[in-house]
Amino acid sequence: MSAVRLGQIVEALGGELQGGSPGTEIRRLAPLETAGGDALSFLSNPRYQSQLAASQAACVIVGPALRDAALARGACIVAPDPYVYFARVTQLWKRLQGLGATVGIHPSAVVHEEAQVHPTASIGPLCVVERGAVIGAHTRLASRVTVGERCRLGERCIVHPGVVIGADGFGFAHEGGQWVKIEQLGAVRIGHDVEIGANTCIDRGALEDTVIEDGVKLDNLIQIAHNVHIGRHTAMAGCSAVAGSTKIGAHCTIAGAASIVGHLELADNVHISTNTVVTHSISRPGQYTGVFPMDDNARWEKNAATLRQLHRLRERIKALEQTHKGG
Amino acid sequence: MSAVRLGQIVEALGGELQGGSPGTEIRRLAPLETAGGDALSFLSNPRYQSQLAASQAACVIVGPALRDAALARGACIVAPDPYVYFARVTQLWKRLQGLGATVGIHPSAVVHEEAQVHPTASIGPLCVVERGAVIGAHTRLASRVTVGERCRLGERCIVHPGVVIGADGFGFAHEGGQWVKIEQLGAVRIGHDVEIGANTCIDRGALEDTVIEDGVKLDNLIQIAHNVHIGRHTAMAGCSAVAGSTKIGAHCTIAGAASIVGHLELADNVHISTNTVVTHSISRPGQYTGVFPMDDNARWEKNAATLRQLHRLRERIKALEQTHKGG
Amino acid sequence: MSAVRLGQIVEALGGELQGGSPGTEIRRLAPLETAGGDALSFLSNPRYQSQLAASQAACVIVGPALRDAALARGACIVAPDPYVYFARVTQLWKRLQGLGATVGIHPSAVVHEEAQVHPTASIGPLCVVERGAVIGAHTRLASRVTVGERCRLGERCIVHPGVVIGADGFGFAHEGGQWVKIEQLGAVRIGHDVEIGANTCIDRGALEDTVIEDGVKLDNLIQIAHNVHIGRHTAMAGCSAVAGSTKIGAHCTIAGAASIVGHLELADNVHISTNTVVTHSISRPGQYTGVFPMDDNARWEKNAATLRQLHRLRERIKALEQTHKGG
Repeated sequence: MSAVRLGQIVEALGGELQGGSPGTEIRRLAPLETAGGDALSFLSNPRYQSQLAASQAACVIVGPALRDAALARGACIVAPDPYVYFARVTQLWKRLQGLGATVGIHPSAVVHEEAQVHPTASIGPLCVVERGAVIGAHTRLASRVTVGERCRLGERCIVHPGVVIGADGFGFAHEGGQWVKIEQLGAVRIGHDVEIGANTCIDRGALEDTVIEDGVKLDNLIQIAHNVHIGRHTAMAGCSAVAGSTKIGAHCTIAGAASIVGHLELADNVHISTNTVVTHSISRPGQYTGVFPMDDNARWEKNAATLRQLHRLRERIKALEQTHKGG
Repeated sequence: MSAVRLGQIVEALGGELQGGSPGTEIRRLAPLETAGGDALSFLSNPRYQSQLAASQAACVIVGPALRDAALARGACIVAPDPYVYFARVTQLWKRLQGLGATVGIHPSAVVHEEAQVHPTASIGPLCVVERGAVIGAHTRLASRVTVGERCRLGERCIVHPGVVIGADGFGFAHEGGQWVKIEQLGAVRIGHDVEIGANTCIDRGALEDTVIEDGVKLDNLIQIAHNVHIGRHTAMAGCSAVAGSTKIGAHCTIAGAASIVGHLELADNVHISTNTVVTHSISRPGQYTGVFPMDDNARWEKNAATLRQLHRLRERIKALEQTHKGG
Repeated sequence: MSAVRLGQIVEALGGELQGGSPGTEIRRLAPLETAGGDALSFLSNPRYQSQLAASQAACVIVGPALRDAALARGACIVAPDPYVYFARVTQLWKRLQGLGATVGIHPSAVVHEEAQVHPTASIGPLCVVERGAVIGAHTRLASRVTVGERCRLGERCIVHPGVVIGADGFGFAHEGGQWVKIEQLGAVRIGHDVEIGANTCIDRGALEDTVIEDGVKLDNLIQIAHNVHIGRHTAMAGCSAVAGSTKIGAHCTIAGAASIVGHLELADNVHISTNTVVTHSISRPGQYTGVFPMDDNARWEKNAATLRQLHRLRERIKALEQTHKGG
């Protein structure tokens, strides 16, 4: 890693450098706890303020409220939102270090002659881009990504290795005990600034398109079934899944391994907790949860056994109440 | 898309065209609600009958019971099972439009010289077919599929991108706190007319083969562990998983994200609900479920906390009952 | 398969061959039940002792306690731990049969010129090894594996098809309703003797590295998020997931489809049951569980409905108890 001077950072990103010199060289970005004298760090969550004084960091990014506490320790960059500022520093850092840079179409990629790839897009090694697919400006397919027939990605998207966009949705009619395939004639339409994690799958629609709107962020190993529609700036964590024809609003968060069954509608600003199964539509913003609480195995066994008699227990309570009233 | 005439459709697939002309040109297949005057649509679920009258579709596929209602609106095709008929229309449509057509072995695929690929099979870009693998007639590996050593696929299978057939099963002996690998010497044997969704994994058996029978349909991101046996025409939805040595019967359905633990046996016609964990064998057909109901987060917290004391609550009810009897 | 003589096996692996001839030819390894006269089998779990007498196997591997029972049937190999011995036989078998053998870098793999691949490592077809990645001695990438920039694998690792090591962790700052990417500047560091199942994903760290210690075994379709640390000889079964910055101890087992949320710490020797969601740190060894018990659908519906009123039921019990005390 080559060094970056503090002055370069504030020049590029704004913020006020205080109690330190623009010439100070930064060689690492690091958490407060492990930052050494060559590192730039940040403090965004006031809960960790106790770590500030002890940190060895060359400089710490803080919000205005912590300016004095930070200055008491040494150099700091003051920014309105230190976490967002830190995010921008990581982007600058990556650019300056030349990490991850690839351009154009890798010679090992298989791009159909009737696909349209923007000249500023980058198609990594061993990707497959099928006939009629469209890849927008500055969009990057990492490696081993498949973009199926007629699927479209907007601008500035990032698609991680192993992603499959536009495999057939899971659709069958049932006839005499056998399954008859419903060919999936729709495609996948992905907006701008979408990021898609490794080995995630987004199926093509049956008749119309599966749609992922602008700014959506999908983590790894996610399943998006056919005809799903995900609203802009919604984020879904790893191993979550959305079944067919469900519509998720904008600005939602779906935590890891949560499942949303098919043909539902979720309003904007709905937040689903980890491992929760959404079995009905949600029309009001809020946090929704359904997780069996973990326990040590022996206690779980007792409670789980009782759970299978829960309805009967309720009847017994009712009977006791009746008796009491009766008496 | 080039147009297809209604007459072509009934010629190819049967059904009675009524109240319309065989020369009418169809340019899209579409749901009732969004179908325009160039579209063929269908009505299979009587629940949606109210959408029929208002639909702009050029023609609607219906069952005999809805013939009159459909004719009152305009052209229709009457077929015994309109959903199956519609499925066949999508297949015809795909063929006529030349969608998804590939043949033979793509030059970027890596096919071992000792693999056997039927001349009518199609091996898409960047697939790997290892030594001794067998790919049957008309079977299609989409792109980036791996078929491991000695694994066999029957005829007319469809394997979507990223699928891994024949990776090692997860088998270890335990010795002095470390794991000793059990080499997985079996293979995977897949029947005819099997479809396998994107990024699904089917592991090879430890000593004998993992078996997927004819007509099984697997969605995306499914895990099939070593020595599993799945009976014919069973369908499994996305993100479901079957642990080692479990045997699933024929004509079962396993909903999304359901898990079946190892060394179990499920009878024919067993239906497992979404996200359900099957922890014991099932000998009787039926629908089985085990899902924590979702709630808003505050209510869930209260109920989940109480759940951890459920067994004690039962004891308290028992005590109350005793007291009452005693009194 | 070419035959292997019993004498070759005990020469290579130790153990005492009793009641049989070293010249006996073995053509298969098989379970007791299906073993024929050309097969070597084993009995490790005393529960299956009843299968011993009836087995047709040419020879059975047993522990010292079962020597006499085994000899009454015919040839046996006596070893201190018959399951570990059997594991070693599978390894010998694979070697002698020349299964799975590949060496060097397959010509279809894309290996960056600044990656370091040990000459004894093997990089299978259509793998991608990016700049600065390091692949240790005797490590084997099966096919279609991606190892990202600066990620390191130790010696004797096995990485199955479709694995993605070093995709970006899922990190974003939130600004004005949109997500700002936090570039993931760390890498992935994997120890010796690690095995990674098909389509599993291990993300790179945000600032520091994601770490997988020696001897860890990961099954298929597992998600390991950024900055996770997994202690040596821990094993995780298929479809399990670990969210960001969680630290798992050594010698743990995480069963299939279990989820561990972020920023937790699990002690050594913690065992998590299938489908359990770990929502808080665990400081004591033991078995932990949280699974909704499966039931037939009708009973589940009643119990699940009551579960949503569980807290109120508790209040009603309390009221009954008060009344009783009051009386």
